[in-house]
Amino acid sequence: MKKLENIEKMQQFSFQARKKSHIIGLVPTMGALHQGHLSLIQAARQECHEVVVSIFVNPTQFGENEDYERYPRDWNQDCSLAAAAGATAVFLPSASDIYPPSYQTTLHLDSLTQHLCGAHRPGHFDAVATVVCKLLNIVAPHRAYFGQKDVQQLRVIQQMTADLNMNVGIVPMPTLRESDGLAMSSRNAYLSPSERLAAGIIYQALLTTEQAAQAGETSPLILQQLLLSHLVSEPLVHVEYAAVADPVTLTPLEQQQSSMLLAVAVRIGDTRLIDNLLINLPSCAGFTK
Amino acid sequence: MKKLENIEKMQQFSFQARKKSHIIGLVPTMGALHQGHLSLIQAARQECHEVVVSIFVNPTQFGENEDYERYPRDWNQDCSLAAAAGATAVFLPSASDIYPPSYQTTLHLDSLTQHLCGAHRPGHFDAVATVVCKLLNIVAPHRAYFGQKDVQQLRVIQQMTADLNMNVGIVPMPTLRESDGLAMSSRNAYLSPSERLAAGIIYQALLTTEQAAQAGETSPLILQQLLLSHLVSEPLVHVEYAAVADPVTLTPLEQQQSSMLLAVAVRIGDTRLIDNLLINLPSCAGFTK
Repeated sequence: MKKLENIEKMQQFSFQARKKSHIIGLVPTMGALHQGHLSLIQAARQECHEVVVSIFVNPTQFGENEDYERYPRDWNQDCSLAAAAGATAVFLPSASDIYPPSYQTTLHLDSLTQHLCGAHRPGHFDAVATVVCKLLNIVAPHRAYFGQKDVQQLRVIQQMTADLNMNVGIVPMPTLRESDGLAMSSRNAYLSPSERLAAGIIYQALLTTEQAAQAGETSPLILQQLLLSHLVSEPLVHVEYAAVADPVTLTPLEQQQSSMLLAVAVRIGDTRLIDNLLINLPSCAGFTK
Repeated sequence: MKKLENIEKMQQFSFQARKKSHIIGLVPTMGALHQGHLSLIQAARQECHEVVVSIFVNPTQFGENEDYERYPRDWNQDCSLAAAAGATAVFLPSASDIYPPSYQTTLHLDSLTQHLCGAHRPGHFDAVATVVCKLLNIVAPHRAYFGQKDVQQLRVIQQMTADLNMNVGIVPMPTLRESDGLAMSSRNAYLSPSERLAAGIIYQALLTTEQAAQAGETSPLILQQLLLSHLVSEPLVHVEYAAVADPVTLTPLEQQQSSMLLAVAVRIGDTRLIDNLLINLPSCAGFTK
């Protein structure tokens, strides 16, 4: 596996791969690789000649009081894990390589960035869209793999690449979960044992709410209240939002749809966790789209 | 010459050209082609296998009281002129193809958009950067050609493509001028005969100011006043700005540099005209960069 530590080396790698008509897959990460990331790398390995894992803790997407400084960093372990999962190259740019002193361009998405996490993390998704746009241009992959756990990030990237006519396939990958259902996340490592135990409530709340919808509850408002009440039954959990939203636009739903996204963000201690579940109703009286 | 009337056909054209290892040049225009555009097409013809001329009057870059509606449109004549100058394809997308209903992504450049024309046309250069980013992704050219008459546009495109790591060469091309020095522009067609006569003052003012700098005038402020006083000596001319700026950052200069940009925007009747001249001093006591 190649370690490419600046943009120029990454570009040369991709240029050579493309010259050989090799299919390039990109798995963009901030390091701290867990099984979720590795499942993306393994999937890319099945579909691509070259699998590039980018590791870049992007400073611009962290808010002032967020965890940029303490975000877990262990590049050596990440490289070993990436190689074992099938990566053929790791791209490890520096912040000054990505954002040189004269840097001044930001992408902005009008609507998708306003809901869910976007409402609580101003500028976050614009910064994500910007850095992913740059990574896609640098790595020039045919496909890029994103986990569905970060569903708003996924939608922002899908919309951005479509809006800007970028020639890349965005591949959504299912969320991997611990045995109690907690979605895998690099931030789970922040949790104390009691917090970790409490975090199991998130997926339970999503499942319970989905079951209510499948059992015939048609009101998004009642589903949202059910989701919320389940979450707050765990005292360590502080809910940032609990939403029933359109899976494409991410806007809150007022009427039932055949496809509805349950999405939550909570704080447990100092740790912010997100999760979501897509409800697909087989048939639906209130079907509106 | 191929006429490609939607994004998909354009992409297929470029895909085929790239498969043959053909070099693709792009000349982005809003139509109303004049000799300036044709010189870009001819230059591209010298350097590229395929020369694509895009014709798209981009609605998002016009302000509310600007000339989007009356901007000259004659696609048939433009296609004839482009073909005669050496274009191998014309890309003529519709506005709904470029901006479908769900469209929501805009690029923003922090600093370059604040000066010169940017101060008078809020949002204009962000919209230009956005549509050019899209055109570059759709056409996938190796090189794209831009006239130096629109110097701020050129700088914004250079900065945007560098910031977003776009794999394309931006080729600046010299301003073409009428016999009295007026910079060629599609908007010159708006001028009445007396306005057209008055417009000759713009280049005269730039030249006179450059001569003063070459003759030893070291103060940017005095050069700016000279430029302004020359322009206002013509009663039909209303000056929007007359600036002495850094050619890279476009910020106003307080001290002499070896390279200084004279830039002006004026209104003559209902017509807004811009022009600029780059001063390169062979040696310079106040050389600061």
